[in-house]
Amino acid sequence: MERKVKKVAILGQGLIGSSITRAIFHRNLPLEVVVTDASEQVCKRLLELGLGRAKVVFSNEEAVKDADLVIGCVPVASYASMVKEVAPHLKLGAILSDVGSVKEAVIEQTLPHVPGNVDFVPAHPIAGTEFSGPDAGLPKLFSDRWCIVTPAENSNEEAVTAVCSFWESIGSKVEVMSAEEHDHVLAITSHLPHLSAFSIFHTARKHEESSGTPVAQYSAGTFRDFTRVALSNPHMWRDIIMLNHKALSEAFEQFSRDMKNILAAAEEGDNRRLEELISESRKMRAENINEEDFSRKKAKVTDAFPSEIAKPYSTD
Amino acid sequence: MERKVKKVAILGQGLIGSSITRAIFHRNLPLEVVVTDASEQVCKRLLELGLGRAKVVFSNEEAVKDADLVIGCVPVASYASMVKEVAPHLKLGAILSDVGSVKEAVIEQTLPHVPGNVDFVPAHPIAGTEFSGPDAGLPKLFSDRWCIVTPAENSNEEAVTAVCSFWESIGSKVEVMSAEEHDHVLAITSHLPHLSAFSIFHTARKHEESSGTPVAQYSAGTFRDFTRVALSNPHMWRDIIMLNHKALSEAFEQFSRDMKNILAAAEEGDNRRLEELISESRKMRAENINEEDFSRKKAKVTDAFPSEIAKPYSTD
Repeated sequence: MERKVKKVAILGQGLIGSSITRAIFHRNLPLEVVVTDASEQVCKRLLELGLGRAKVVFSNEEAVKDADLVIGCVPVASYASMVKEVAPHLKLGAILSDVGSVKEAVIEQTLPHVPGNVDFVPAHPIAGTEFSGPDAGLPKLFSDRWCIVTPAENSNEEAVTAVCSFWESIGSKVEVMSAEEHDHVLAITSHLPHLSAFSIFHTARKHEESSGTPVAQYSAGTFRDFTRVALSNPHMWRDIIMLNHKALSEAFEQFSRDMKNILAAAEEGDNRRLEELISESRKMRAENINEEDFSRKKAKVTDAFPSEIAKPYSTD
Repeated sequence: MERKVKKVAILGQGLIGSSITRAIFHRNLPLEVVVTDASEQVCKRLLELGLGRAKVVFSNEEAVKDADLVIGCVPVASYASMVKEVAPHLKLGAILSDVGSVKEAVIEQTLPHVPGNVDFVPAHPIAGTEFSGPDAGLPKLFSDRWCIVTPAENSNEEAVTAVCSFWESIGSKVEVMSAEEHDHVLAITSHLPHLSAFSIFHTARKHEESSGTPVAQYSAGTFRDFTRVALSNPHMWRDIIMLNHKALSEAFEQFSRDMKNILAAAEEGDNRRLEELISESRKMRAENINEEDFSRKKAKVTDAFPSEIAKPYSTD
């Protein structure tokens, strides 16, 4: 059995929220969509943009009225207070979901505010760019990307199925796992790369200060790609690192051991082992990431809204 | 005073070597160019490709004959033996240069084989892609990119000026610094990002093995860009890490401290400091790397030889 979703409220219309709105209309899904944003300026911009048949309202309270599915697309640190605010206004039997990059800590903070007659089914679409705001949204942002759904143990199955179906209907591949496992996986595939990108500029600056030689400027594509996400929204990433710092610290410790392991092979002059470790990585990269799929989709996505103004902030 | 360069020999026609050849003819430089490669198959491919007016020969000995400037574009670990081989055949007063990613260790290994009547002026163009081989070369690979020239203390000034001028003539910005300083800078901007990309797949695999959950597949643009260079040539990167492991280890130690510093701010719940550290990185990224310049050049470069077959191997 699946819970019928007719009306969706999307609270927050930044990169992710407005991409969901665009995806719904891009795919002509038979849904009533109400959107809002904490920023009045963003709400006004939404009226200018006119995203599909989305109804723009100026408060969370008004947005969630009669909604079968409410998706909070607000910063992870604001999620609990947003839920507290809308709780009294949620429809009986509504499904409450989100798109946050951190799950366990946010669920812990939020759960006490979720009314008993509402189903809470957290989710995280693994997609993003380094841009943010309502202009940065893309109708195909979620196409062929994973969305991880992290229900609680006692989550209503019909509600979980409904959230999975919603993400599939806008193009995502869906996987269900525990919040804890999600946080460990994302610590490796997203939070650790961000931490690395942020950190390497401090490393470069220290060398610049001690040697008097510029460092970061003597770089090419490797450094540019490695550090692209350092352009991300500092406020958002402060919150993600703060909320997932335990899993991230564990991932960092292992990452550090793995780097030391490669360096040890070099120090010992063990050519065979060094090349083996690098070759294994190359194989894993080739097996896990389909570059063609990315470039194909990127081209399509970029073509979709070429003239939109977007600020350089990241989220995935 | 500048040494006159009329004839250039380029030994090795992989990504970098063949890009130099292409750049010379793309810019119509009045130079006689002789090229060769250790691989007979590559030499035959060069004849098929017909890169400008380059003369293809089948041995290093033949290539360096009468050359005013000899540029070794061979793997860093083969450089010393290549120099040993060509030494008896170099013209009196020839300039010997290279393009290697590691300078100090390679110079140390090579210098004993450089004849007294030849000027040795190592160089390193900071440019590359994850592809390799003669088909991967691009005529604008060096346009607006840095080339670092690392003369020895007793290098002949005219020879140093000639090497700088050569790189400027194919579009590079040139900087002169010591081999030691070069190796520290590149350890941060190139070798550390490669080490990170190689290592994170081992981190991901360990979590996959212990948890039974796939990790690397649940990734988006962040992880793709962070790990692109893991597709690089394992043999080449084995040698770079092996030859520069001291500077790289130092860079890693500082990088590790910088990551711990950000994590410590999170652990202590110090929101202000955490956001400050991230904001500083964002500022340094924005100041040091001009994305527009990259995308503009990338578009041009890609357009140049759209149909060429290239293998996914990296070098910068």
